[in-house]
Amino acid sequence: MAFDLSSVFPKLQMLATSDHSSVVSMNLFVALLCACIVIGHLLEENRWMNESITALLIGLCTGVVILLLSGGKSSHLLVFSEDLFFIYLLPPIIFNAGFQVKKKQFFVNFITIVLFGAVGTLISCAIITLGVTQIFGRMNIGPLEIGDYLAIGAIFAATDSVCTLQVLNQDETPLLYSLVFGEGVVNDATSVVLFNAIQSFDLNHIDSGIALHFLGNFLYLFIASTLLGVLTGLLSAFIIKKLYIGRHSTDREVALMMLMAYLSYMMAELCYLSGILTVFFCGIVMSHYTWHNVTESSRVTTKHAFATLSFVAETFIFLYVGIDALDIEKWTFVSDSPGKSVAVSSVLLGLVLAGRAAFVFPLSFLSNLAKKSPNEKINLRQQVIIWWAGLMRGSVSMALAYNQFTMSGHTQLRSNAFMITSTITVVLFSTVVFGLMTKPLIRYLLPHAKNSSSATTESSTPKSFFTVPLLGGSQDSEADIDGQIIRPSSIRLLLTTPTHTVHRYWRKFDDAFMRPVFGGRGFVPVEPGSPTERNGQQWH
Amino acid sequence: MAFDLSSVFPKLQMLATSDHSSVVSMNLFVALLCACIVIGHLLEENRWMNESITALLIGLCTGVVILLLSGGKSSHLLVFSEDLFFIYLLPPIIFNAGFQVKKKQFFVNFITIVLFGAVGTLISCAIITLGVTQIFGRMNIGPLEIGDYLAIGAIFAATDSVCTLQVLNQDETPLLYSLVFGEGVVNDATSVVLFNAIQSFDLNHIDSGIALHFLGNFLYLFIASTLLGVLTGLLSAFIIKKLYIGRHSTDREVALMMLMAYLSYMMAELCYLSGILTVFFCGIVMSHYTWHNVTESSRVTTKHAFATLSFVAETFIFLYVGIDALDIEKWTFVSDSPGKSVAVSSVLLGLVLAGRAAFVFPLSFLSNLAKKSPNEKINLRQQVIIWWAGLMRGSVSMALAYNQFTMSGHTQLRSNAFMITSTITVVLFSTVVFGLMTKPLIRYLLPHAKNSSSATTESSTPKSFFTVPLLGGSQDSEADIDGQIIRPSSIRLLLTTPTHTVHRYWRKFDDAFMRPVFGGRGFVPVEPGSPTERNGQQWH
Repeated sequence: MAFDLSSVFPKLQMLATSDHSSVVSMNLFVALLCACIVIGHLLEENRWMNESITALLIGLCTGVVILLLSGGKSSHLLVFSEDLFFIYLLPPIIFNAGFQVKKKQFFVNFITIVLFGAVGTLISCAIITLGVTQIFGRMNIGPLEIGDYLAIGAIFAATDSVCTLQVLNQDETPLLYSLVFGEGVVNDATSVVLFNAIQSFDLNHIDSGIALHFLGNFLYLFIASTLLGVLTGLLSAFIIKKLYIGRHSTDREVALMMLMAYLSYMMAELCYLSGILTVFFCGIVMSHYTWHNVTESSRVTTKHAFATLSFVAETFIFLYVGIDALDIEKWTFVSDSPGKSVAVSSVLLGLVLAGRAAFVFPLSFLSNLAKKSPNEKINLRQQVIIWWAGLMRGSVSMALAYNQFTMSGHTQLRSNAFMITSTITVVLFSTVVFGLMTKPLIRYLLPHAKNSSSATTESSTPKSFFTVPLLGGSQDSEADIDGQIIRPSSIRLLLTTPTHTVHRYWRKFDDAFMRPVFGGRGFVPVEPGSPTERNGQQWH
Repeated sequence: MAFDLSSVFPKLQMLATSDHSSVVSMNLFVALLCACIVIGHLLEENRWMNESITALLIGLCTGVVILLLSGGKSSHLLVFSEDLFFIYLLPPIIFNAGFQVKKKQFFVNFITIVLFGAVGTLISCAIITLGVTQIFGRMNIGPLEIGDYLAIGAIFAATDSVCTLQVLNQDETPLLYSLVFGEGVVNDATSVVLFNAIQSFDLNHIDSGIALHFLGNFLYLFIASTLLGVLTGLLSAFIIKKLYIGRHSTDREVALMMLMAYLSYMMAELCYLSGILTVFFCGIVMSHYTWHNVTESSRVTTKHAFATLSFVAETFIFLYVGIDALDIEKWTFVSDSPGKSVAVSSVLLGLVLAGRAAFVFPLSFLSNLAKKSPNEKINLRQQVIIWWAGLMRGSVSMALAYNQFTMSGHTQLRSNAFMITSTITVVLFSTVVFGLMTKPLIRYLLPHAKNSSSATTESSTPKSFFTVPLLGGSQDSEADIDGQIIRPSSIRLLLTTPTHTVHRYWRKFDDAFMRPVFGGRGFVPVEPGSPTERNGQQWH
């Protein structure tokens, strides 16, 4: 997220101002985090709840208690800076997602993911913008300009990757996970470009030149961010392999991986690129090369430490959103017309539903056209889940809303107050209601989610080589590495699998050029006689 | 460190202000940290350097480069808040020290440690205060009150525990490590009381009532801080054991341990106790109980993750001190009289040397009186090392100096400017020069440090049971647990070992009451036939 960090927020109350009240709120937050972990553990077997909703509800309850204790005045005690979110909380979450993602699954669906993340977001943004232009104009909620309408479109088109991580399970529904989460990551680059475009172009004269400029910007941002992440990851692999840092201290290896991952994010911010994209690809490269170059205990440590940091950051975000929602100051401006506030929020929710439907189903249809095998197509039930699981709007939307509607200091404006409170309402409603319904929906539509992908793919013999690895992990079949080049049984099959051909060439290139330099699987000598160690976990 | 966090620093430039220049400095810092790790690794075999000096020198070089690039104006770009130090950097370092400390060694020397940390610091403070009152009065450096002189005493009596961790090796010189580092931890409680006393008491009428009040304050602070740490640690052990959190996710265990450790520190700050003492004892309790209740991968993760966090925080502090030292604004006030500045710093350095000598040798003599066995006595060579290794003044001293001499906003005062720059000089000089000479000094005075303690103790047969465990780890002999109660060969020996008797009672109490409730070693069923797993590592 590089959209002008300098003006993300009117500095409310910094975390770092160490007066006694901020020590109080630190205590409260850390204690609440502990409570979330314990309660989340106790509710683990519950079929409705998930960790994020638990944290959100605990946050809301805390907000109510603070509101009552302060005599209905304010829950402002606990308002932190949004910078906290972009500089400290988001990077570990996205890095960990890249670090733990099933890479094969991700790259096999790469084109679909980019289609959803780029074109889909634009469609969604356009529909929401058109909708609010038509409806809000008649609702008399105050003066909004074309830039504001476009910003509303961008705000509510932003799929929240953090929510996605919570509701979809990578092991149970790998295809859906990679599509929806991948879309959320690519979506970030689109948001950056959209925001820059809204802020820098003359919006009253939109022509094809601007569209081209826009496209060029997007491509530059996407490619530069990805490259930066890949290069930082490769550098870390090279340093750790070349210097063999684990020789003296495993702590140095872990520290170096952590710091270089963070460095990639901060460098992207420095160059006004998309830090999310960069750190995501850095995570992918690090898990493919660097992770294999470190000592055994460093591997265990990094795997769990990154997951833990990401888990704590996620919980913190939801807790924070919950508490922040009850900040009374935001609601005072709209309290005289509660009906209109509900109407605005409902309109936005409806447009979010419609905007997402408007690209998920057509783009899935397009994506299915390119795939001839029925096993690779996205069926209607899966499309419904993709549509539903991406509906949640989270802290990214909130940060964008604050950025747009409070930056010029005119929060006093009725229309801006409406937009802020509506964003909070949409975020809370979508996370709690849509979030609560996702697990049951998946269970209803895909009754055997856990086994479906392996069951359906293993029956289609000639394709099993390509699709079983979708499950990732030790089940990866590395047939061509053992010399058995798979010969597709028909020319048609060959034509339908360009991704897999790319994959095979990549594997050859990886083995011939990349691994000798950057290490990776099998760099640290494994004990002879453990072929599983060498053949398995290629992409994991 | 609870000495009124609210006024630790005039807010210079917060880390969290996210304008582009702060993104630049974040990048620079993270990149420099990576450089420190790599260079520290390359210099690992060097017999002079250690990690902290490397970081300090890299920081100084960076400061010079920034100074040159900015045309000699300022290196202010990189000035962070001191809060960063007390809220984020110090807790992981001290917690990790408690988590990894050899507990037996620490508790066997507990009385000596408290003697050094409490009485020693008071003696040192008194001597430095007397010295500066006599000398600075004649040097015409500006108006200083009695409160300022006392503050100078407290500032330069504060042994920096972080430096100690760097120059002493727990495995090579366990006795010295536990004495000097333990002293540094206890010292913190003394500093808090001293500072509160200086700020709240009427210093012109010192009588026995104030001395009693002072003593009462110290005891309250020491006991309350310790209890808070122990209780938080026990609570974490109880929750993790009772709920068996690792059943669903190892990440939750790691997160809970991390958060509860941090919570103990923040709660101590909340109650104006000594966070350092609290988090140190929390670390000890967690390594004794909680760590044994978690899954195997959580154990590996916590052990290395805590060490890594601590390592990064330490490196960051030294890097920061190095860069901060070249902040040109601090030096402008004293640049017209460089000779006097050097004189002030030299006087302070001399008083630090004298003040520490004045308590290390007499208190060691006292401590030796209580110990009849020559093996337990602190010999002269060891005393010299204790004296020398505690001479370094670090970021704690700097924070205290800023607190005292810039809090009322009168940095313009000549005397205050002198005190700030002298503190920086003393910190830099003591860390680099004294730090560089510590390793060679230990090698010169204790040529066989690595083997000496085991070699000398193993020759004295009846005592070997008591002293071999000083080495900690798997060499712990757990004779009495196997039913062999050691019968001292003479009554005199029995009289001289009250600590060991306490230890035996503690062990019985621990086995009978604590472990059934809070878990600890052997809680998670170990494979039968691995007696080393059960008998070794009792205290580690």
